[in-house]
Amino acid sequence: MRRSATELRGQILAAARAEFARYGLAGSRVDRIARVAHASKERLYAHFGDKEALFREVVATDVATFYQSVTLRPDRVPEFAGDVYDLGRNSPEHVRMIAWARLEGLVLDEPRPDSQLLFEHAITAIETAQADGHVDRTWEPLDLLAMLFGIGLAWAHAPDEYQGTTDPAVIARQRAAAVEAARRIIGSPVDN
Amino acid sequence: MRRSATELRGQILAAARAEFARYGLAGSRVDRIARVAHASKERLYAHFGDKEALFREVVATDVATFYQSVTLRPDRVPEFAGDVYDLGRNSPEHVRMIAWARLEGLVLDEPRPDSQLLFEHAITAIETAQADGHVDRTWEPLDLLAMLFGIGLAWAHAPDEYQGTTDPAVIARQRAAAVEAARRIIGSPVDN
Repeated sequence: MRRSATELRGQILAAARAEFARYGLAGSRVDRIARVAHASKERLYAHFGDKEALFREVVATDVATFYQSVTLRPDRVPEFAGDVYDLGRNSPEHVRMIAWARLEGLVLDEPRPDSQLLFEHAITAIETAQADGHVDRTWEPLDLLAMLFGIGLAWAHAPDEYQGTTDPAVIARQRAAAVEAARRIIGSPVDN
Repeated sequence: MRRSATELRGQILAAARAEFARYGLAGSRVDRIARVAHASKERLYAHFGDKEALFREVVATDVATFYQSVTLRPDRVPEFAGDVYDLGRNSPEHVRMIAWARLEGLVLDEPRPDSQLLFEHAITAIETAQADGHVDRTWEPLDLLAMLFGIGLAWAHAPDEYQGTTDPAVIARQRAAAVEAARRIIGSPVDN
């Protein structure tokens, strides 16, 4: 059973993201990644360069996947905060990868076109929502977007001792709080 | 010039927090910390145990300092979001230490009494604000506190490419946005 280069690449990336999400860049070990992917370190290096290059590859993919998972619709801005909340709960490893990358100071030199497009799409959606009267026009779209993420991920960023609940009632309450907070912030003339 | 044990301890902690804030637990090197503190690794270990114990000590101190720097007053809840914003801007190394600790999965076994007291003080302040009519009583105090931090630190948690501004006008705009968002969320009957 020989693997194609694409299969091998995919298996290395999967092993790398599990390792990196858990241990970060500095704490991760390439030999563990290679072992899980059933590849030699030499083949891994041949495909991805060094450990940092592999880390960047995983982060770029995760950022793109993260943004692709939530869509900001002009007429449903508050729901976006709820979707971000769900994303933080369901994809904690993505949140971790992005946080590791930020701490490591790894600015992605060129944001991938797909991430950039998704970001621009979100900003455009807020502008449309403002033009359509769904969102108070006094907000700078960039600030509002940052705060919608901040609210949706508020519990994911809280100290461990106050998060990590698995109680469905608590999860539902937190999600509803995020949506309601967003609804109040956007100050829709209909609702206020 | 012999240093007292207290002085030595303080210098090791200062060197450790600079190293840990920058490199995290896995990426930090005890020999660099010892060199900056002009101490031998042996004395460092004698005072603090291993690298992880030293990391925990720094995090516990930083969490306490962080919470001590902001006070939630029942009649000025929106300003709290602004104070948290300032804290995120002025103490990025504290934000980083807390983020590293969360990623490393280092739950502080026993929150220090001072941190715990400050946390309880914040919750009590929200309850008082609700009793006094400053804050909508439908919010669970714990959720509101998480969201106030989420809003205040929204820009500090954003991907690097969209933060890191030093433009005073942008900083003032972001801070004002955080305060205004909090004002709308608490839904004070006076303001709405």
